[in-house]
Amino acid sequence: MKKSILFGVIALSVAATASAQVKPEDQIKFRQAGYSFMSWNMGKIKANVEGEFNAQQVQAAANAIAAIAGSGMGALYGPGTDKDIGDRKTRAKPELFQNMEDVGKLAMDFNAAAANLAQAAASGDKAAVQKAFGETGATCKACHDKYRAD
Amino acid sequence: MKKSILFGVIALSVAATASAQVKPEDQIKFRQAGYSFMSWNMGKIKANVEGEFNAQQVQAAANAIAAIAGSGMGALYGPGTDKDIGDRKTRAKPELFQNMEDVGKLAMDFNAAAANLAQAAASGDKAAVQKAFGETGATCKACHDKYRAD
Repeated sequence: MKKSILFGVIALSVAATASAQVKPEDQIKFRQAGYSFMSWNMGKIKANVEGEFNAQQVQAAANAIAAIAGSGMGALYGPGTDKDIGDRKTRAKPELFQNMEDVGKLAMDFNAAAANLAQAAASGDKAAVQKAFGETGATCKACHDKYRAD
Repeated sequence: MKKSILFGVIALSVAATASAQVKPEDQIKFRQAGYSFMSWNMGKIKANVEGEFNAQQVQAAANAIAAIAGSGMGALYGPGTDKDIGDRKTRAKPELFQNMEDVGKLAMDFNAAAANLAQAAASGDKAAVQKAFGETGATCKACHDKYRAD
């Protein structure tokens, strides 16, 4: 468990070095872009598991989610990004920035679920995708419920 | 050549079916999110090839770019997305929507370059990444110069 948390914290900070020069307002913009693009792809997978299943589309969508999840978005939660900056609003609660160890664990859960979803999608098996999709959605919700304002 | 163009058009439309229900303003939002998130990752790779090279970070960034490029963003250029919708502005020129065959070819060039960049990044070779990064940037620019307003 301790090891897992440590891994999550490392995963969150993997991109920190080279991104230090990204302005706080751009960090907020980029992290929102990542979540927005993932939500589009989650929507496509949802439509596929609820209707006609296009394995190629599901695989492409799952790959995008997994790769975005694994891209080191923790670097986009730097100093000064805990509140709105001008027109750039954030729904991240202040609590997120006060509980980075817990956030790291939630991020690690999400990364693992997204990687598992991509693996299920590569198999082309609808039932496996449906299960992995539900598990991924649960890891999204776990963080939103705690750390995202409505 | 003809085959290549056809492939590009197919790549552009791969996600069309299940995304038909995405509202035009959300299509613009999602496509902008994809480009924005890719630009963050291009910036990270640029910082790595110009400075200290963190192979793990470069690989994660290149994977995100390639997976987003391959996610069927052509479906986000549907009817009604050729102009601003309320507060949702677009820099896509009207010419883009009148030249979908050319756009499909440019998209295919970009997809191929992004896949090649991910492959170079997986090798961990800085010189190979530098070359593939330049080639990817050129395919971005080819489309921006023709079809994106300043």
